[in-house]
Amino acid sequence: MTTLATRLTRSWNLKHPVLSAPMAFAGGGELAAAVSRAGGLGLIGGGYGDPAWLEEQFDAARGQSVGVGFITWSLRKSPSLLTDALKRKPVAVMLSFGDPRPFAVEIHAAGARLICQCQDMEHVQDAVDVGADAVIAQGAEAGGHGALRGGITFTAEAADYLRVNAPDTLLLAAGGIADGRGLAAALMLGADGVLMGTRLWASREALVHARHHEAIIGTDGDGTIRTRVPDIARQLPWPKGFTARIRRNAFTNRWHGREDELEKCAPVEAPRYRKAFAEGDPENTAVWFGEAAGLIHSIEPAGTILERASAEASACLKRYA
Amino acid sequence: MTTLATRLTRSWNLKHPVLSAPMAFAGGGELAAAVSRAGGLGLIGGGYGDPAWLEEQFDAARGQSVGVGFITWSLRKSPSLLTDALKRKPVAVMLSFGDPRPFAVEIHAAGARLICQCQDMEHVQDAVDVGADAVIAQGAEAGGHGALRGGITFTAEAADYLRVNAPDTLLLAAGGIADGRGLAAALMLGADGVLMGTRLWASREALVHARHHEAIIGTDGDGTIRTRVPDIARQLPWPKGFTARIRRNAFTNRWHGREDELEKCAPVEAPRYRKAFAEGDPENTAVWFGEAAGLIHSIEPAGTILERASAEASACLKRYA
Repeated sequence: MTTLATRLTRSWNLKHPVLSAPMAFAGGGELAAAVSRAGGLGLIGGGYGDPAWLEEQFDAARGQSVGVGFITWSLRKSPSLLTDALKRKPVAVMLSFGDPRPFAVEIHAAGARLICQCQDMEHVQDAVDVGADAVIAQGAEAGGHGALRGGITFTAEAADYLRVNAPDTLLLAAGGIADGRGLAAALMLGADGVLMGTRLWASREALVHARHHEAIIGTDGDGTIRTRVPDIARQLPWPKGFTARIRRNAFTNRWHGREDELEKCAPVEAPRYRKAFAEGDPENTAVWFGEAAGLIHSIEPAGTILERASAEASACLKRYA
Repeated sequence: MTTLATRLTRSWNLKHPVLSAPMAFAGGGELAAAVSRAGGLGLIGGGYGDPAWLEEQFDAARGQSVGVGFITWSLRKSPSLLTDALKRKPVAVMLSFGDPRPFAVEIHAAGARLICQCQDMEHVQDAVDVGADAVIAQGAEAGGHGALRGGITFTAEAADYLRVNAPDTLLLAAGGIADGRGLAAALMLGADGVLMGTRLWASREALVHARHHEAIIGTDGDGTIRTRVPDIARQLPWPKGFTARIRRNAFTNRWHGREDELEKCAPVEAPRYRKAFAEGDPENTAVWFGEAAGLIHSIEPAGTILERASAEASACLKRYA
C-alpha cells in the first residue's frame, strides 16, 4: 500500500528506496539491522579503523542482511578492515571521501555491491570508471562530512551523466532528506532512492548520546555550519575540500574562523573534545547532524521513519498526479 | 495540456508556476515581458538604484504585465526608486537581502503583491510578519547573491512554518531550478512554484554579453563558487552573510581567500572590473550564474524554457503516479 517502487527497490529487492548513511560512531549494527528489517538497506559505519568495534557492530546486526561504509582515505591506512568486513558478507560496501580504485575489485570479487558516494562531478566520473553499482550524489545540506554542491543541481546533473555514460548504474540522493517530501523530490530529480543520515541519526537505534538527541530536537535548519574545526580538534587528516556539517554551538563559535590557532592547540583540544563527546556535552564538542534538523521533532524507531517517509512520498506524488 | 496547476497558478492566474528572478543588470524588461507572455510572471531587476535604467526596462516590457524586484538594503538608500516603480503598476514587488518592513505598506497600498525572498528561517518569519503574499526560499545553489541554506531542507522547513503561521502565503523555491525536474522537486518539497534565475539568465532575452553566455555553456555545476570578491571589487557594501555565486575563473582564483588585500586594491579594481564586465570578458570579472550551469546546454528563448520546464515537470510527476 505504502510502498514506492523504483529501479532501486526492484533491482535490490527492497521495500523502501532508502539506505541509511554509514555514520561513523552513530551508525552501528542495531541501526543498520533496523533499517534493513523495515525494508530499506542499512549500512554500518566503518569509521576510522577500529576493527574490534566493527566486528561488534556486525554482531549487533544479528544476521540481518546489511551493508557497510568506509571513509576511503582512512581505509587506505588500514585496508584489512575491508577484507575483514567482506568476510561478514555485507550486501553492499559504500566508499566515500577518496579514490575508490584501490578497493573496487576486492568488493566486487566478494560479491558485494559497490556504492560510491560523490561530492562533485569528478567523483561521479570516477565512480563510473570503477564500475560502481550505485552512485550517491551528496549535497551540502548533509550532516557530517561532505562538500559544497547543492543537492538540487547535483542530483539532476549526476542523473544526466549516468543516463549517457552508465545507464544501469543506480543513483541515490543524499543530504537533507528526512521525510517523504525529500524522498519524492529526489525521485523527481532523477534519483532511484535516497541515503538518509541525519534523520536516522535521530532514531532510537542510533549510537548517539541522549543529550545530543535532545540538541537536535531544539535546533532548526539554520543552526548548523560546515567547518573543519572538529577534524582539526581531533587531529584527523581529512583531505582538503571536505568539511563537516555539525551543530553551531560554543565549540564552533569558539574555533570556526580561527583554524590556525586551533591547529596549535590540538594536542590539548583532542582529549578535551573526546571527553566532551563521550559525555554528550551539546556545546563543547561536535554534534553531528545536518540541515534536516529543522524537519526533525522527535527521536523515533528507524522502522517508523522509513515507513512514514515512503508513505508520505507516495502521497506527495499522488497530489500532483 | 502541458500546464501544471498549483496554488500559485490558480491564485495569480498564471499558466506556469514560474517567476523570473529580478537579476540586477541581466533581468530587464524584455526578459520579464517574455516570461509573463509565456504564462509565468517576469520580474524586472531593480538593481542598485539607477532610475533611468529602471524606467527604460519598464518601457521595454511594452505594457506586458510584469513585476519588479529590489535589493532591499540598497533600496533603503534610494527609496524613491520604489515609489517610481509603483507608478508603473507592477503586478508584484519582490524584496530580498534586507528588512522588508520599511516598504511593505507602500507596496500593498499600491495594489501590488509583496514577495519576500528569504535565505534563512528568520527571514521567513520577518516575511510573514510584514504580510508577504509569497515567500521565496532561496537555496545556496542559486547564482548571484544568496546565503548558505540548501534548497532541499529550506523549502520543506519554510513550508512547515507557513502551514502553521500563514497558511495563505504562497511558497516558491529558488536556487538551482533550471528544468522540469527541479520544478517538480520543488512542488514535492511543499512549494507552490519556483523562481528561476540562472536558467533565464541563459535566455535570449536576458541582458547578458554573448561571451558570458558562451561561458555558461562551457561550465558544469562544479564550476561556480560563493564568494564576496565581486562585491569588494565593485565597492558595494553588501551586508554580512550574503555572498555571490559566480563562475570560478581567473578573477575568483586571484582574489577568493585574499579579500583583505582586494579591499585595499578596490579603488583600482572597481573600474577594471566594470570595464571587463562591459566587454564580456569571461575570466577577469564576475560571470553571474549558479550551480544550474551544469544543466544548461544552450541559450534559448525564455518562453521555450518555461514551456519545456512545465511539460517536463508534469511528465516527471506522472512517472511515479
